Amino acid sequence: MNEKITWLNDAVKQWDQKSLDAAQEHQAQLTKPPGALGRLEDLAVNLAAMQGRVKPELENIYICVFAGDHGVTEENISAFPQAVTAQMVENFVHGGAAISVLAEQLNANLVVVDVGVNAPASSSTKVVNKRVVDGTKNFAKQAAMSESELQSALDVGHKIAEQAASDHAHVFVGGEMGIGNTTSATALAAAELNIAVALLVGPGTGLDADGVAHKRQVIELALQKHRAATETNLMRLQYFAGVEIVALVGAYLRCAQLGIPVLVDGFITTVAALYAQSINYNVSDWFIYAHQSQEPGHQHVLSALKARAILDLGMRLGEGSGAAMAVSILRNAIALHNNMATFEQAGVAGKNTAAKTA
Amino acid sequence: MNEKITWLNDAVKQWDQKSLDAAQEHQAQLTKPPGALGRLEDLAVNLAAMQGRVKPELENIYICVFAGDHGVTEENISAFPQAVTAQMVENFVHGGAAISVLAEQLNANLVVVDVGVNAPASSSTKVVNKRVVDGTKNFAKQAAMSESELQSALDVGHKIAEQAASDHAHVFVGGEMGIGNTTSATALAAAELNIAVALLVGPGTGLDADGVAHKRQVIELALQKHRAATETNLMRLQYFAGVEIVALVGAYLRCAQLGIPVLVDGFITTVAALYAQSINYNVSDWFIYAHQSQEPGHQHVLSALKARAILDLGMRLGEGSGAAMAVSILRNAIALHNNMATFEQAGVAGKNTAAKTA
Repeated sequence: MNEKITWLNDAVKQWDQKSLDAAQEHQAQLTKPPGALGRLEDLAVNLAAMQGRVKPELENIYICVFAGDHGVTEENISAFPQAVTAQMVENFVHGGAAISVLAEQLNANLVVVDVGVNAPASSSTKVVNKRVVDGTKNFAKQAAMSESELQSALDVGHKIAEQAASDHAHVFVGGEMGIGNTTSATALAAAELNIAVALLVGPGTGLDADGVAHKRQVIELALQKHRAATETNLMRLQYFAGVEIVALVGAYLRCAQLGIPVLVDGFITTVAALYAQSINYNVSDWFIYAHQSQEPGHQHVLSALKARAILDLGMRLGEGSGAAMAVSILRNAIALHNNMATFEQAGVAGKNTAAKTA
Repeated sequence: MNEKITWLNDAVKQWDQKSLDAAQEHQAQLTKPPGALGRLEDLAVNLAAMQGRVKPELENIYICVFAGDHGVTEENISAFPQAVTAQMVENFVHGGAAISVLAEQLNANLVVVDVGVNAPASSSTKVVNKRVVDGTKNFAKQAAMSESELQSALDVGHKIAEQAASDHAHVFVGGEMGIGNTTSATALAAAELNIAVALLVGPGTGLDADGVAHKRQVIELALQKHRAATETNLMRLQYFAGVEIVALVGAYLRCAQLGIPVLVDGFITTVAALYAQSINYNVSDWFIYAHQSQEPGHQHVLSALKARAILDLGMRLGEGSGAAMAVSILRNAIALHNNMATFEQAGVAGKNTAAKTA
């Protein structure tokens, strides 16, 4: 692989052990039975360690939706036409999409990046044009992208993470838009984890059973065809990914190097996280899995990553929408951690030692 | 039962069918694959039907924490001493408890009602003194309360629901505080559902295995002792409940009659919802189950109610804290429903009929 992308293996920032210890000690003194806030306790303490402060903050939310088209849509593997990718890009910046509404609710920064849409570039100045390709090639027939296109797409993600850092983002939410990208993500997950396509494949935006069976066959044949050429994680990305997925991999890697917590959204973004971890193992310290998608492959990939999502609301939309839903949970977790009284402050009695031996 | 509480069986308000239909039609036109927002879609549509408007609102959140003490703490069934109930009441109104912090986050109205704390009444004007008893009697030995105390506690809940209605509450969050009340709720659930205590009993605020075994025995003996006297749901409440649980039952019943959606919190509040439904079946139309508690009994009671909670964050605190966590989810669900663009508005293409037969 081209040496220009040696940044992939740069050291990941380490958590701040002092803040972790102090946050744990603080959490233990709050007026509630130990552990009674469940996962909210670890979420707050871990964010403290990531941010290097006993009382973490979560004001600045940086959401970036990467958009790209997939040549494999030629194989008729999606319930929606390819034109929808470009149409949704407009919808994102005009405020009408789910992620636009959630970004507004969260007072978050929403950045929309065209990494490789197969349509005339948007005339809106709100769409960041970082186009690497006009849609990928059809991976049923050939590699989705060239080595240099892979590199460029990784660099798009790298730059966005740098931008998030200079904007003082407290958390990074990556989203994706690309008709056909559950097909791409399923191929990527199957190849990386050596899991049967049948276990991973699903309806995406809404295929019926026949459609899912056809999609499965397209992926299986492609995996077989390119087996010899896809021996490394980067080769697998080059053959099966979309550029929006590669940009996510780049953004996730760079966020972890810069020390920005990443809220991972759903199936496609979790596959991007899987590849980021495969490339540079310690990056996963910075990943928080937000939402369990309805897409069947997601559970398998989460299990492989030994991860459990915060929410399970039956969503299967992408765009970063599941991750955006989890922001409120994190904000509440932090508010509790930062603002609850301690037993001493409130004059509340501690645990009853007598009852322990009852 | 005294005829003064015949209001228990007053008619429950019906959902507005026109708003339900119109909200469903609106939801189907939003720019996302049908069903891609999962449970958020039904939550928004159901709230529309409850509020009688296609685009529901969720600004005014009315949180009421009912506090009461339990005579059964004499049996050494809690990890914390009884004094904590009164101490936590102070903590609620001084802003230091979990529910206080969450109420602040949500810009919600937090009302704290002393229904039967066993300590001198609070000197704070912020605590609403509606004390019915100075703690209940020990149900291991006798009925927890008299028939007239039961009636008074139901009336406390009734009045709070009326207050919520006149404050234009968009949703009612009931919470509870009472050392010993998982013991009470476990006895109530076992008696009402005829489920073995062993399946329901749990550590509450943090008993160890021996403590849980002892708690189980206390409950089993009490259920046996009072079997003949606890043939109706109201008699079961009189014998095993705490007054804070009875007030919740009253509040939930009255909310459903007045048409205020109820966000049910965790184990103890779900047992209150179970009794409300047992008393007046249709009230459950107005109940939204917010959080799956770690307390083992909760899953069994939810199953009996054919309910599934929105969140599963491993919390086991009570106070209404799990329900408060779900408010942000509902607010986001409503924002999406109200503010997303339709396919027509955004000029986005619909589903690909070709792919359906692929």
